[in-house]
Amino acid sequence: MDACIVKTYDELKLDFPRKERIGFEEAILCPGKTPEHLEAILEQAAARNATMLLTRMSADQVASLRPEHREELDYEPLSRTAYFGFRKLPEPAGAPRVAVVAAGTSDAFVTREILRTLHYAGENASSYVDVGLAGMWRVMERIESIGQHPIVIVVAGMDAALPTVVGGLVGSVVFAVPTSNGYGVAAGGESALRAVLASCSPGLAVLNIDNGYGAACAAMRVLRAIDAEGQ
Amino acid sequence: MDACIVKTYDELKLDFPRKERIGFEEAILCPGKTPEHLEAILEQAAARNATMLLTRMSADQVASLRPEHREELDYEPLSRTAYFGFRKLPEPAGAPRVAVVAAGTSDAFVTREILRTLHYAGENASSYVDVGLAGMWRVMERIESIGQHPIVIVVAGMDAALPTVVGGLVGSVVFAVPTSNGYGVAAGGESALRAVLASCSPGLAVLNIDNGYGAACAAMRVLRAIDAEGQ
Amino acid sequence: MDACIVKTYDELKLDFPRKERIGFEEAILCPGKTPEHLEAILEQAAARNATMLLTRMSADQVASLRPEHREELDYEPLSRTAYFGFRKLPEPAGAPRVAVVAAGTSDAFVTREILRTLHYAGENASSYVDVGLAGMWRVMERIESIGQHPIVIVVAGMDAALPTVVGGLVGSVVFAVPTSNGYGVAAGGESALRAVLASCSPGLAVLNIDNGYGAACAAMRVLRAIDAEGQ
Amino acid sequence: MDACIVKTYDELKLDFPRKERIGFEEAILCPGKTPEHLEAILEQAAARNATMLLTRMSADQVASLRPEHREELDYEPLSRTAYFGFRKLPEPAGAPRVAVVAAGTSDAFVTREILRTLHYAGENASSYVDVGLAGMWRVMERIESIGQHPIVIVVAGMDAALPTVVGGLVGSVVFAVPTSNGYGVAAGGESALRAVLASCSPGLAVLNIDNGYGAACAAMRVLRAIDAEGQ
Amino acid sequence: MDACIVKTYDELKLDFPRKERIGFEEAILCPGKTPEHLEAILEQAAARNATMLLTRMSADQVASLRPEHREELDYEPLSRTAYFGFRKLPEPAGAPRVAVVAAGTSDAFVTREILRTLHYAGENASSYVDVGLAGMWRVMERIESIGQHPIVIVVAGMDAALPTVVGGLVGSVVFAVPTSNGYGVAAGGESALRAVLASCSPGLAVLNIDNGYGAACAAMRVLRAIDAEGQ
Amino acid sequence: MDACIVKTYDELKLDFPRKERIGFEEAILCPGKTPEHLEAILEQAAARNATMLLTRMSADQVASLRPEHREELDYEPLSRTAYFGFRKLPEPAGAPRVAVVAAGTSDAFVTREILRTLHYAGENASSYVDVGLAGMWRVMERIESIGQHPIVIVVAGMDAALPTVVGGLVGSVVFAVPTSNGYGVAAGGESALRAVLASCSPGLAVLNIDNGYGAACAAMRVLRAIDAEGQ
Amino acid sequence: MDACIVKTYDELKLDFPRKERIGFEEAILCPGKTPEHLEAILEQAAARNATMLLTRMSADQVASLRPEHREELDYEPLSRTAYFGFRKLPEPAGAPRVAVVAAGTSDAFVTREILRTLHYAGENASSYVDVGLAGMWRVMERIESIGQHPIVIVVAGMDAALPTVVGGLVGSVVFAVPTSNGYGVAAGGESALRAVLASCSPGLAVLNIDNGYGAACAAMRVLRAIDAEGQ
Amino acid sequence: MDACIVKTYDELKLDFPRKERIGFEEAILCPGKTPEHLEAILEQAAARNATMLLTRMSADQVASLRPEHREELDYEPLSRTAYFGFRKLPEPAGAPRVAVVAAGTSDAFVTREILRTLHYAGENASSYVDVGLAGMWRVMERIESIGQHPIVIVVAGMDAALPTVVGGLVGSVVFAVPTSNGYGVAAGGESALRAVLASCSPGLAVLNIDNGYGAACAAMRVLRAIDAEGQ
Repeated sequence: MDACIVKTYDELKLDFPRKERIGFEEAILCPGKTPEHLEAILEQAAARNATMLLTRMSADQVASLRPEHREELDYEPLSRTAYFGFRKLPEPAGAPRVAVVAAGTSDAFVTREILRTLHYAGENASSYVDVGLAGMWRVMERIESIGQHPIVIVVAGMDAALPTVVGGLVGSVVFAVPTSNGYGVAAGGESALRAVLASCSPGLAVLNIDNGYGAACAAMRVLRAIDAEGQ
Repeated sequence: MDACIVKTYDELKLDFPRKERIGFEEAILCPGKTPEHLEAILEQAAARNATMLLTRMSADQVASLRPEHREELDYEPLSRTAYFGFRKLPEPAGAPRVAVVAAGTSDAFVTREILRTLHYAGENASSYVDVGLAGMWRVMERIESIGQHPIVIVVAGMDAALPTVVGGLVGSVVFAVPTSNGYGVAAGGESALRAVLASCSPGLAVLNIDNGYGAACAAMRVLRAIDAEGQ
Repeated sequence: MDACIVKTYDELKLDFPRKERIGFEEAILCPGKTPEHLEAILEQAAARNATMLLTRMSADQVASLRPEHREELDYEPLSRTAYFGFRKLPEPAGAPRVAVVAAGTSDAFVTREILRTLHYAGENASSYVDVGLAGMWRVMERIESIGQHPIVIVVAGMDAALPTVVGGLVGSVVFAVPTSNGYGVAAGGESALRAVLASCSPGLAVLNIDNGYGAACAAMRVLRAIDAEGQ
Repeated sequence: MDACIVKTYDELKLDFPRKERIGFEEAILCPGKTPEHLEAILEQAAARNATMLLTRMSADQVASLRPEHREELDYEPLSRTAYFGFRKLPEPAGAPRVAVVAAGTSDAFVTREILRTLHYAGENASSYVDVGLAGMWRVMERIESIGQHPIVIVVAGMDAALPTVVGGLVGSVVFAVPTSNGYGVAAGGESALRAVLASCSPGLAVLNIDNGYGAACAAMRVLRAIDAEGQ
Repeated sequence: MDACIVKTYDELKLDFPRKERIGFEEAILCPGKTPEHLEAILEQAAARNATMLLTRMSADQVASLRPEHREELDYEPLSRTAYFGFRKLPEPAGAPRVAVVAAGTSDAFVTREILRTLHYAGENASSYVDVGLAGMWRVMERIESIGQHPIVIVVAGMDAALPTVVGGLVGSVVFAVPTSNGYGVAAGGESALRAVLASCSPGLAVLNIDNGYGAACAAMRVLRAIDAEGQ
Repeated sequence: MDACIVKTYDELKLDFPRKERIGFEEAILCPGKTPEHLEAILEQAAARNATMLLTRMSADQVASLRPEHREELDYEPLSRTAYFGFRKLPEPAGAPRVAVVAAGTSDAFVTREILRTLHYAGENASSYVDVGLAGMWRVMERIESIGQHPIVIVVAGMDAALPTVVGGLVGSVVFAVPTSNGYGVAAGGESALRAVLASCSPGLAVLNIDNGYGAACAAMRVLRAIDAEGQ
Repeated sequence: MDACIVKTYDELKLDFPRKERIGFEEAILCPGKTPEHLEAILEQAAARNATMLLTRMSADQVASLRPEHREELDYEPLSRTAYFGFRKLPEPAGAPRVAVVAAGTSDAFVTREILRTLHYAGENASSYVDVGLAGMWRVMERIESIGQHPIVIVVAGMDAALPTVVGGLVGSVVFAVPTSNGYGVAAGGESALRAVLASCSPGLAVLNIDNGYGAACAAMRVLRAIDAEGQ
Repeated sequence: MDACIVKTYDELKLDFPRKERIGFEEAILCPGKTPEHLEAILEQAAARNATMLLTRMSADQVASLRPEHREELDYEPLSRTAYFGFRKLPEPAGAPRVAVVAAGTSDAFVTREILRTLHYAGENASSYVDVGLAGMWRVMERIESIGQHPIVIVVAGMDAALPTVVGGLVGSVVFAVPTSNGYGVAAGGESALRAVLASCSPGLAVLNIDNGYGAACAAMRVLRAIDAEGQ
């Protein structure tokens, strides 16, 4: 290959000023990136002594890294998230201000992405899982506790009816994350997405299918607004 | 126009043996039928002294009929149903065995089609309306009463989460009828349809969007199975 | 029609406890409701001396009301919203905490629904309109002012690129409302909806197409979280 | 990974009271569940001495279990169903009350899921397969026998015309299960699903694509209604 | 408006050599054509003493024509077809070689377009209507007669199961025309189209939704092949 | 309505610097704009002595304007375009550098929008219409003349095969504009759009359905590049 | 597994009378069939001394057969067709009456399925491939020869413009088979399918995506009609 | 297999006159081509001493070639492009006239296809990558430089907002290439495609999803028009 194309690596433009601008750092969305792309990105981070969050990183991508980079990763395979540049990430302190509520255990790949993203940003969170509506007593037992968090993220696939029920019962900020879990008309998450967008519970706000990272970022925007007020 | 096409009227083939075969009569689905079609159909019914149920009949179609036919119609405009051949339809007797449950008052055009179809067949029914999940106490107050019917038809538009909740709480036969109510992604009922098909409540069975007539027929099939057992 | 169906009116179940439960009142979504439905609803409100917000109300629906109800309405035709039970709604006090940003003047039917819903709830808001990206200087001139609001609602049809740009520049809570404006692939708002859900700006949360009411409710959930903190 | 996420396993909330509530037990839908999830679920079942039905379980998931759990499984690979906690499931007694009718042999993965789910619940069933409409004599030869069952489940992919024909000939309760069999426009089952929802045979009720489990549950709801009547 | 655009009328390029090339004349598809377009087209036909078939012509378009053109039209409103240039079209002679079979009377707008197009071309046809599968005896009574035509055109909306049944019973050339009749998932004809494309009956060939004209042309291509052989 | 909403009119931000920036002026897309919006826009233009192009303007919108504004409009109803601020637009001079090629006369509403937009910008154009592929001799007769223009815009609905044929025969810049003409699967233009995007002719570039205005703008970008070179 | 399910094999109902009924034999569509299914089918064929055509058969399915069955197969991997029960299939005699025309060499998996199906039925065919419209001279050179066949099957993926061009130039019966070749909007063949259904060439009849087998069957129906005439 | 099918190889019709006709050579789109197809193609090229560009060529396809053909390939795996017949392709001379702008590094598989196609044709190009709008300063820093190229190709996946921003800031010819990068609603590129087609920036012209090759061809058509002018 000729030189002009190799130049694309030199021209990587990471958005390091993002934290200052909007309150949280750029994360690296890994699909479609070659090993060379990932190495170049981690190098730029290492050169600045910066830490980094990587999302949707495959085990193959981890394995393709140079050992000195790989060692710096705290990788969690179900959520496919990695923390770069930490020997040890301190436990988040303070009472949890975000509740993550999930209909099924199969949604864990999304709930963990949320929890890991918040953890990376130093935020604590509570999790309430396996509370699907086929047995509604499970969410009803816990709804008071859920409603005590200023922010509630509800994760649900298939018919995604859970966010509607939660949104009708608590006055918190409610974000709904539809998931790709399901088969037939539910496969891929389009049905869940449409259901939460069409919810009869007022004021639910919706993220892309399986977008746990985005839900965590939306929560951080709200926490920032709360913190600004508290000052 | 030439004769060969006029012949199409002579060749009308109403399915009068249907009741014997499957337990309930053919109903006439009106959209797309010309006044000539409708007149020919009613004439055949009148000639046999048969009564008839007409569905999705527009006010214009009613108005286009000959007065002697129009007089024989009991027409209800919201459900767009008409009974032909009755001076007075007797009130159905017996305890209601079907509960019709609807999320919103805007779904009345469907719930009435169900009630009118059952009524035509001599079946009594209970109705529980305006019990949407945004305020869940409304359905919870009535769930025990709902569950005492062997058959429950749940009608819901938008995100159609109500059938999931009801299906998880009662052991009755549950039919879900998604409606076209809603806007944006909900417009037309595709989102409601997908949600009920993907429901996490086991054993919900689904009808086409706005198909109140079909839900009533499905209920009649179940009632027939129950009655056969009772004999 | 028989009595059992007329009973549906008696069984209207308005969700009056909603405000206590989640912080704001039930609003009446008007499409699909008959004049009888609307009269029954307003009667219940009047009987309790309650005020009410009606959304997506057509001019025909307004005209169909009894004069004594019609007189109690403050109706705005572009947003199709009505306030019931107010002689005069007081101007909201306090600095605006919500910025409503719209790409085009054609989106006014949505931006007004947001502003009217917030106003009904006593919230002040700023509006920044006609700032589409084809001439980006328009939004850049105003971005600093926009970013000073803890909540920003961005309304955009067609390709809905504006929320991405705003979300990348301000750290506020950002809600995106895709609109049905546009033609060809943009008609109906599906393209705008998909674009904002797929946004590369992190933490945008999305409402249904044209759902200005929902965006205002989501904002009120955030304001409530902020206010709780401030206490 | 940190402790807070491990906690998700402790919080598994199986719906053991479901049988009492609606008449049949929770089944475990396996896709998306990790080996750890499955082990934790089976442990809870074992601790209560409960049996369990697992659906859509892959051979890899079976292989990932601890030997003592694996031994307790009766796994059938085509339907991907497993019975947990049985040395030997007794043959269902009594005359079959459900007829399972399938257009093609390729639909066997669905028909077996139905038969295995009914069998697990102690219900007997008849099966009529390979009776597609391209050679209609096959279903016509058997239609009288089919119609003697109070419940008929028709399984069909591609154009799914079979449920319409059966529904027009028998007065039984008819559930239609569209399958994902087919290619081109039929791939994935959307065409079959739409066809059965739009059927001109009145009172067909529809399940999600490939949802044999759901059809069996719907049948059990009807059997329960019949049995209640018979008491 | 300036001259260059008016020129578009002068540049009308009717395909008069089509009949020589492929065996039948160009027909004029009317939607989207202005009165000026239609006048210019009829003028060119009149100048050549040619007759013409117009399809999907609205009553408004007929009314907009100059009286001397309007008089030359034999217009049939249900099929929206018009013959131009005939005082009287002779009855087609010979035994019918095309059978037009339709599921419902509501499909008459399509079946008439087929019959009128064939008639214009001098072809005789038989019609078998109102033979939907909900009462299958109707088509079974007539199937032998249908199968005696070398070409069978089956017209069906909703689930469009009829072409599959007919195609499995007769060895004729079978063309399926899905129609836009139906509601919910059937609205617009997409479900019917998908069903006939996915048919398990081998060798059905399919036309666009509501395309009766195209089906007649396809039949004429086959008749031409038969006639060539007969020579 | 309260003052804050009236302010939206004052805040109209027309993009007057656009011509300097990218070479042509902002045009006003009329759908969704109220009479007040349009008046405010024309006023701003009049105040600057600027001319303006309005697109997709309905006859009702024209009629709603104040007479002094209406008089300044040169409105063409088929293309729904208006020129504001011209007593008389001079004929474009110079040899035409753009060829507009259209499959059917029904596409005239799009071809005129292209021609009118180019004319407004002072560009001359040739038009070749009614050259659909069902009679391919029509385009073959003219293809050499078409290929002598540096830019060719091909407008086609239904199956939109014409751009593929033209793109394979001429080396000009080719823009394809799919139109909404057609019925059944073609209705709305999605089929035409997909066909031109998937074209096997290399280097066709595509505009939104019915977007004649956009095609003219794309042509102007190319003309600008050519003119820059010529300098 | 229990006996009732094993019974499904005994109940295989092959449609041996099909040839008598409609003129050609049942073929076995292999996807979704287990090795046991296939063995049972071939056994039934062998027991009757019947030959058989198998379609979409994977190499794995071939490999899974018992050697004595595998030996009886003439398998062609690109078309995934197999002839069962032939030592040697005789070359078809007579002049070819079907022309198979394909836009690209990548469509060979479909064109071979057509040719192999016709060959199995004893029909000769001509093939014209790699004649895509990007270089139209390729099809123009051969169009006269193509048009001499009473039946033309045009196979095309991507934008599938070729059937429109051929259908406008020859008066033969024209069947269009869209293929799944292509990427982006063309992936899967939906764009090609829509294009051929919406074709402006009159009387094209369409098969499902990649359905070469069906096109061959449609051709055989026409040949049968021609042959009947010739008698 | 019989001879008639083997003949398809002999009948390969490469479009060697394309360059003369429209200015650039036929490229070989590899998916779906067998090793025999590819060998036959390269042989024809070698026989004429012609060079060739191959696109979307898999590593497996490269590996399947005969060594003497494989040696003649310059293959680049990320873009999956190969140059055949070059020992060494000379560096393009002259100032770059095309700017390739890409939102993310994950879009490199498309940007390289563009650069490699232009390089093969002897055209130089600049590349500006990783300039996504989440951090808009990255594109703003470079926009002046970008706008100095007569042609700008903007490559973007997910919400594809970048082409709108660039198109509003530069007066160059702008082609947008949506990519399949993204997940959830963005998966496959349909959302990106719709966004760029619906762009509010006037005169963007769009290519199929991931169609870098087509964008390069469109650019070459413009360069040819510029060069013709310059003569």
